[in-house]
Amino acid sequence: MKKLRAAIVGYGNIGKYVVEALQASPDFEIAGVVRRSLSETKPLELTDIPVVTDIADLGKVDVAILSTPSRKVEENAKKYLEMGINTVDSFDIHTDIWKLKQSLDSVAKAHQAVSIISAGWDPGSDSVVRALLQAAAPKGLTYTNFGPGMSMGHSVAAKSVEGVKDALSMTIPLGTGIHRRMVYIELKEGYAFEQVAAAIKADDYFAHDETHVMQVEDINAIKDMGHGVNMTRKGVSGKTQNQLFEFNMKINNPALTAQILVAVARATVKQQPGCYTMIEIPVIDLLAGDRETLIKQLV
Amino acid sequence: MKKLRAAIVGYGNIGKYVVEALQASPDFEIAGVVRRSLSETKPLELTDIPVVTDIADLGKVDVAILSTPSRKVEENAKKYLEMGINTVDSFDIHTDIWKLKQSLDSVAKAHQAVSIISAGWDPGSDSVVRALLQAAAPKGLTYTNFGPGMSMGHSVAAKSVEGVKDALSMTIPLGTGIHRRMVYIELKEGYAFEQVAAAIKADDYFAHDETHVMQVEDINAIKDMGHGVNMTRKGVSGKTQNQLFEFNMKINNPALTAQILVAVARATVKQQPGCYTMIEIPVIDLLAGDRETLIKQLV
Repeated sequence: MKKLRAAIVGYGNIGKYVVEALQASPDFEIAGVVRRSLSETKPLELTDIPVVTDIADLGKVDVAILSTPSRKVEENAKKYLEMGINTVDSFDIHTDIWKLKQSLDSVAKAHQAVSIISAGWDPGSDSVVRALLQAAAPKGLTYTNFGPGMSMGHSVAAKSVEGVKDALSMTIPLGTGIHRRMVYIELKEGYAFEQVAAAIKADDYFAHDETHVMQVEDINAIKDMGHGVNMTRKGVSGKTQNQLFEFNMKINNPALTAQILVAVARATVKQQPGCYTMIEIPVIDLLAGDRETLIKQLV
Repeated sequence: MKKLRAAIVGYGNIGKYVVEALQASPDFEIAGVVRRSLSETKPLELTDIPVVTDIADLGKVDVAILSTPSRKVEENAKKYLEMGINTVDSFDIHTDIWKLKQSLDSVAKAHQAVSIISAGWDPGSDSVVRALLQAAAPKGLTYTNFGPGMSMGHSVAAKSVEGVKDALSMTIPLGTGIHRRMVYIELKEGYAFEQVAAAIKADDYFAHDETHVMQVEDINAIKDMGHGVNMTRKGVSGKTQNQLFEFNMKINNPALTAQILVAVARATVKQQPGCYTMIEIPVIDLLAGDRETLIKQLV
């Protein structure tokens, strides 16, 4: 079996778990890790893995797994797609997904490459469940309730606010898709808490939810990357009311994001050039193994 | 918008709900119902719907929705595919799905048609969830627990045993994917209960489960077509253990089967010629509406 060569771009929370997910996948080979700079000490677990600042130094790469913050995705993805390298990401700014897809689609097609975007667990695997439940009961309401758990995207967004040394944003489900954000921050010296807290609350990531910001001494002491989802749909199949559906998860957040990224990285080589979200690709393409075995086992 | 013209083939439990699901779908038009014979009185709800014995009498048909027992699917599907008509079915004999796919795939390709098979809720929408959960946590165990509820396939199978006038097979979940079959039958005159019960237990539909057969006076008095599913997966994402997933449904069984059949009927016109199971087609293809709206709403 010819293995797919994957590069991990960015080495934060998700990047670390992507390395593990690739190591656990028999059909992948790690080409290496791409970082902005090599000034930091090389982490022990990367001892046998090339770490570079330019993906060109990794030889042939089939797919780049973007493990950078959402706001860096478009720029990075375009760069790799233009080199003919497939990309996957877990871009999580829901309102900008269509725009990102449009933008990457033309680049991907022009360079015979494939991009699968917003492929974490939400957006991502949850999106597949949401779409499936809408097909099963076209009229009705779906509520996606998150948490309690740490939101990676919101924590990164809070951390990027000026004056924040470190941050943890917890998502608290209030039911019917309404959430509270509990944001814990370590403050940089010389900054006033009230100003920083106001800046966080004004950020687009937080502006639409009830948000509480609290100062703590040590983010690390309260950090747990477990997360949860409770999705419900009550709807109508044909003319039959009261069809009830529920999807629940209790998971390690970056571990699941990383695993989904690796699954869609595998799927990139099975699609025509272009940019896709997860609901646009067949679920079987996410899986390792031959079609006959998978269909016999799963259908 | 050009509407898809669908024919309903067979008019039992599922066929009735397919008519309703088509009537509730703005992108479909009912071409008519195909029955084996027209000797029976035309049901009131079909007053304005053509009922024929030969699909050729319905004018142009884009897709035939096979609402016949599983054992009739292959023969019927081949006949329509050879006419260039797409087919969908809810074939539910899990061990024969791959064989059916192989058989219909060549016919479909030869006639530039599309067939989507085993598209009910299990096999069907459950299969999509099972495949997705395996992608999310590749190592681990999935248990699909059915019921309590009436199994359409098993009831039809029991009813087709010699000496059975009417039958209802209830599926009782015993956990970890183990089920009990509670089969209630009305006996035809002149048959011995013990012999008929033994024949049911020997049928391949029942031979692998704990099965109890009971004689009743009136099947209709105990028939409720509600059903349920509880699917669980506990597995490993990358190297991270104890990832927990759960999917639950409480649904009207034929109504959901019919709705899924209509969704895949819609999807047939978006696939290349060939035969597919639901895990091989993008979930977005199941949905009515334009791509941009669906992606913005669901991803």
